[in-house]
Amino acid sequence: MSRRQLKLGFILHGVGPGWGDWRHPDANPGASTDIDFYLRQAKVAEAAKFDFLFVADSVHITEKSSPHYLNRFEPLTILSALATHTTHIGLVGTLTVSYSEPYTVARQFASLDHISRGRAGWNVVTSWLSGSAENYGKPVHPPHEVRYRIAAEHLRTVQGLWDSYEDDALVHDKASGRFIDPAKLHALHHKGEFFSVRGPLNIARSPQGQPVIFQAGASEEGRNFAARHAEAIFTEGASFESAKAYYDDIKARAAGFGRDPSRLAVLPALRAIVGRTEEEAGRLYGEAVGLIRVEDALVALARAFNEHDLSQYPLDGPFPDIAAYGAQSNRSTSERIVAAARADNLTLRQAALRFASPRREFVGTGTQVADAIGRWFAGGAADGFIFFETLPRQLDAFAAEVVPVLRERGLFRREYEHATLRGNLGLDVPENRNTAARRQQAA
Amino acid sequence: MSRRQLKLGFILHGVGPGWGDWRHPDANPGASTDIDFYLRQAKVAEAAKFDFLFVADSVHITEKSSPHYLNRFEPLTILSALATHTTHIGLVGTLTVSYSEPYTVARQFASLDHISRGRAGWNVVTSWLSGSAENYGKPVHPPHEVRYRIAAEHLRTVQGLWDSYEDDALVHDKASGRFIDPAKLHALHHKGEFFSVRGPLNIARSPQGQPVIFQAGASEEGRNFAARHAEAIFTEGASFESAKAYYDDIKARAAGFGRDPSRLAVLPALRAIVGRTEEEAGRLYGEAVGLIRVEDALVALARAFNEHDLSQYPLDGPFPDIAAYGAQSNRSTSERIVAAARADNLTLRQAALRFASPRREFVGTGTQVADAIGRWFAGGAADGFIFFETLPRQLDAFAAEVVPVLRERGLFRREYEHATLRGNLGLDVPENRNTAARRQQAA
Repeated sequence: MSRRQLKLGFILHGVGPGWGDWRHPDANPGASTDIDFYLRQAKVAEAAKFDFLFVADSVHITEKSSPHYLNRFEPLTILSALATHTTHIGLVGTLTVSYSEPYTVARQFASLDHISRGRAGWNVVTSWLSGSAENYGKPVHPPHEVRYRIAAEHLRTVQGLWDSYEDDALVHDKASGRFIDPAKLHALHHKGEFFSVRGPLNIARSPQGQPVIFQAGASEEGRNFAARHAEAIFTEGASFESAKAYYDDIKARAAGFGRDPSRLAVLPALRAIVGRTEEEAGRLYGEAVGLIRVEDALVALARAFNEHDLSQYPLDGPFPDIAAYGAQSNRSTSERIVAAARADNLTLRQAALRFASPRREFVGTGTQVADAIGRWFAGGAADGFIFFETLPRQLDAFAAEVVPVLRERGLFRREYEHATLRGNLGLDVPENRNTAARRQQAA
Repeated sequence: MSRRQLKLGFILHGVGPGWGDWRHPDANPGASTDIDFYLRQAKVAEAAKFDFLFVADSVHITEKSSPHYLNRFEPLTILSALATHTTHIGLVGTLTVSYSEPYTVARQFASLDHISRGRAGWNVVTSWLSGSAENYGKPVHPPHEVRYRIAAEHLRTVQGLWDSYEDDALVHDKASGRFIDPAKLHALHHKGEFFSVRGPLNIARSPQGQPVIFQAGASEEGRNFAARHAEAIFTEGASFESAKAYYDDIKARAAGFGRDPSRLAVLPALRAIVGRTEEEAGRLYGEAVGLIRVEDALVALARAFNEHDLSQYPLDGPFPDIAAYGAQSNRSTSERIVAAARADNLTLRQAALRFASPRREFVGTGTQVADAIGRWFAGGAADGFIFFETLPRQLDAFAAEVVPVLRERGLFRREYEHATLRGNLGLDVPENRNTAARRQQAA
């Protein structure tokens, strides 16, 4: 009976994600470390019944990095701060497996899940900038396929730790003085290629059992990782066609791994610009693009090419032959850029500015943007979106203009169905593996 | 003009720190992962004008661990959650240098300092249980003196990262598009014995400049570390005499390192039990002691002896010869216990129960407990205390009965002097080392 529902996330990044967004006259350039700014956005997103807040991350900057990378909160701290001022919206944090310890990661997300009473999600990333290694005393950033082997083992270890306590392990029997049932507290005894963790974790199983796993795999290894392990996938959504191809591919891979593809939400990025009229939307789009400096757009582009210095090439010459640098870092994005530059015969300047600008397809009135969203959703390119605020108060505009249209069309909730992220995403609480083992032994 | 003022911290641990506290009829045995319990305590402590909340930590449990170790929040997440519900009280979190990365630690505490607008403190610990190593893929827990070499280098690296941005590095010039002044963003280029971190940190310098450094060094190496680096020291305070000796020793060491000893607060643990009458206090003390099981007291004692199994010795025989196990882990505590057992000719049972019980000196009415506090403070054994709640609502009792007496005597604030932890502890904001270097070059 229940119709397929759109899932909506909101990405918190303080200053806008575009290189020039912070330059807007109404923008707060200190937003990225302004707790009041974050609290306000969290409340607006929750009032609009978004499924979750999402905090991206990176562990390395240079003086050339984008404003929203240069100065940002560590994800778990800001999400914990927001947890006690919200009640239903999910709290998804990015944390790299390349430079973290499973025991610590398991504790952090389990704590957030307890603090939020069941709203934590972990966006598992492998940190694709080689500069990250230098902040963690590692001589070389591990190659792509090794990073995904690390990721799989790290995630398996964290998920094992989350099941350390069976749900009824804390007996709290005051009369006898038995605080726990020791038979229901399980050490993990993991010894693998990259990690060795005894366990058990020092926190009870959290309300969701397992915090929700997000991922953003785009390469061959990344797609398999996401299709195998993720419950929600954050994807770029460069065009309807590429998003649709990605969607079909991921769902097929998930089915191939024996999973129910409907339990895996594919969520492209959505940098919509919404106006009360078409004219206002067009004007806002012009403002956003006008704020981008070409030198910044070049640096933004370089992130997909392992931070290769693009200033050495003529701006108005043909797009340079730099595909090899992309293969070293963000392979899928770099390949898409190279293909687009070749197809449309773009200069370096044109390619950089296009890459840095919001997509025109999602610029318009509430109805127009809802139309575009509906096309992607009904057309099988997305299960929902992760919305980015570009210009100031675009979250408010989206909530006021787009969300009501989506509701009228029966695509989006009027009230939260649940108070947990799993519940709102239509995901079950997994049975504790140790309880399951006990049950199977008994049978 | 201003008289020396007592500093008060409150330690958050959910269920009581005693092995039997959770068994009290009024105790909430699930308190340790109950966010509402923590929020309430934080607000009571802030209303009483405590200087800070303190979250202890450990990274390893077994099924025999104490209730407040078995199930606990990760410190940075819970402190971030409390930050946005408080406005003046400090937020001090424990984090081990043995199993963490300086870049991550620097980010976490800088974020908490931004979120709380200047109230973060880091309690630097070296994790003295060898079981911890097994949760972090390390074959051996590093020996004592190596741990303190690691600690010094880790701390130096974190503090260097906190100065990555000079205070005026974020220029936010919308017209020109200059977000930062790149000359005021500094990479650290640290390459040491244990860590190698390029930097810069990806978050602006926080309101306190440097979050406040707490420590709990008790061994020879630990005392030197604390005297050199700490701004507040959490110490055991087993007796007035031992506390006074510790206090004098630490202050002398600090002076020897060229520091002003008044900028280093020595804060013993205070497990006071407060009643409205002497009779009530005595009854409550009896209740607290009556809840302790001897088997739990043995395990508690074993923590100071590297978790050596004490159940193998006769309970009512003489205190066993186990000093060598203590030397491997918590040397100072184990030495004190051995000395006390020898001096008073205690059986193992007596020693274990005494070690697990609150001290009688701080049991009484508000006036009696304030008298004892005043003796330690005026007698040069303490600059203040870190208060532990044993039985339920003892924080409320302390706030209602003891704090007003301390105020009447001019020992404790009526209002917060500042909105930062540094300000309330009488510590200055340190100048950014990179700004200082620039200033010295110019001079």
